[in-house]
Amino acid sequence: MTKIAIVGSGLIGRSWALVFARAGMDVAAWDPDEGTRERLDADVAAMLRDSDLAEPADVAARIAGVETLAEALAGADLVQESGPENAEIKRELFARMDAAAAPETILSSSSSALVPSVFCSGLSGAARCLVAHPVNPPHLVPVVELCPSTETAPEVMDRAEAIYRRAQQIPVRLTREIDGFVLNRLQAALLAEALRLVSEGVVDVQGLDDTVRHGLGRRWAFMGPLETIMLNAPNGATDYMVRYGGPMGRLANDSARGEAFSAKAAEVLTEAFPSLSSSAAIRDRQNWRDGELAALDAHLSKRRTKD
Amino acid sequence: MTKIAIVGSGLIGRSWALVFARAGMDVAAWDPDEGTRERLDADVAAMLRDSDLAEPADVAARIAGVETLAEALAGADLVQESGPENAEIKRELFARMDAAAAPETILSSSSSALVPSVFCSGLSGAARCLVAHPVNPPHLVPVVELCPSTETAPEVMDRAEAIYRRAQQIPVRLTREIDGFVLNRLQAALLAEALRLVSEGVVDVQGLDDTVRHGLGRRWAFMGPLETIMLNAPNGATDYMVRYGGPMGRLANDSARGEAFSAKAAEVLTEAFPSLSSSAAIRDRQNWRDGELAALDAHLSKRRTKD
Repeated sequence: MTKIAIVGSGLIGRSWALVFARAGMDVAAWDPDEGTRERLDADVAAMLRDSDLAEPADVAARIAGVETLAEALAGADLVQESGPENAEIKRELFARMDAAAAPETILSSSSSALVPSVFCSGLSGAARCLVAHPVNPPHLVPVVELCPSTETAPEVMDRAEAIYRRAQQIPVRLTREIDGFVLNRLQAALLAEALRLVSEGVVDVQGLDDTVRHGLGRRWAFMGPLETIMLNAPNGATDYMVRYGGPMGRLANDSARGEAFSAKAAEVLTEAFPSLSSSAAIRDRQNWRDGELAALDAHLSKRRTKD
Repeated sequence: MTKIAIVGSGLIGRSWALVFARAGMDVAAWDPDEGTRERLDADVAAMLRDSDLAEPADVAARIAGVETLAEALAGADLVQESGPENAEIKRELFARMDAAAAPETILSSSSSALVPSVFCSGLSGAARCLVAHPVNPPHLVPVVELCPSTETAPEVMDRAEAIYRRAQQIPVRLTREIDGFVLNRLQAALLAEALRLVSEGVVDVQGLDDTVRHGLGRRWAFMGPLETIMLNAPNGATDYMVRYGGPMGRLANDSARGEAFSAKAAEVLTEAFPSLSSSAAIRDRQNWRDGELAALDAHLSKRRTKD
């Protein structure tokens, strides 16, 4: 039986607990904050109410809130650390976990902004540390980026990958540390150009979003951007580069840089989304988004049997 | 009754014919090539066999192949030009169409690479010319980018937008000419970074595609990238920029440029897709893609009633 420890049981940690528990794994969840620990059962029950799992009570029964870090780590095959995005806090937490966990326990961080060497370097167990960066919320978006430091052992990466795969996630292995990993690097490149185009008034915000939602995103939801261009190249990738490499390369040369993340862009966005002007309204729309993510996942899973 | 002329009835032109005809419009399709004209009925029948339209015979009956450009243009509200992506050919074709069509007929080009002034500038009817750039195939991907030249009349843009909307497409209006319009600018920015990451071996091709397919693309299929970041900003867009503008901006500053469209990238792609090494295999996979696009469109349409 695989045992998972969740360290930090806020929004992301709870979602991870659901991922592992619904795949039949035993989960022990701990948070340094007493209030968060006390709310765990109620928060898990709320997530389960919104899900359409066949046996929600069985899933809930596999998630145990525990009172100490040591209890969470005891016997764990993998720890999913999901604490604040702060180098100092993670460094201290990883030192504590490395000292307390059995040597074969994998220590994975949900960090989106910090590469693993930032908080694992110098630990005696640095070889068993990695980042496993999810998309929020992981129980509705399956990709998880696995990023090693130079000290992470390949066999640890293999074991981690196998565990995430058994949990029905889609692990993507990076070969080395890189800021932003893969997902946010791709997102930043597209967003910069998007923000520039709306800031300069070439297109309005709805038009920009429609271009992706009813255009690019229609393909990228079931095949990646690289397979997409392969299918536009009847004579192969070399032919694609000969035909489109020049013009696409010129567009990339001209695409926006970091300054597109500007105060002006923030103003344009604020004006374009009057319906998202309160945090209550944003929470409602997040719930809508999560419902759509679940429905899309169900659709795509059904189609995959027809591949 | 709205009447549409299709000028150039190859792959894109035929798909456009289906878009307009299934929305109840009358379509006259012409191609300069006799063989293409002769194949029209059979090609339309094949498209209809793959669709799940309720009344395919009625749709087919609204698409008439005609023998001359003049017949196609007669009485047309809008011409959808879908000829080769060649400035000389388009310039000549637009001059002929501008001379022959009634003054109120809108002349739209499916061009993906040429801005409208390239082939409309100097025509006496330049005010009624624009680009209406679809995604291939338009009957399965609804977005259409409407790009005016400085000479295009705003009321022509209004009328064109209304026609595409009645045809159930999603028109996106640009305010001015820009190379690549919006969609390919966004695609080029993301692709450059994607090609760089796989060329440098940070991640393999499947991992890159999985990151989008099972991550970014899951959201972008039903909401745009800008609404996506608004929902990650519980205190609004200004707060988003304060929190994430710096780190995302640094990723954008560091993202790949045009040189990523390289011979090396083509090699990596070729190796990664051994199953796409013949044009027959690519055609099969295009058919799979089109089936998935249709299924996804049906899913999203059904969900939209629940918005």
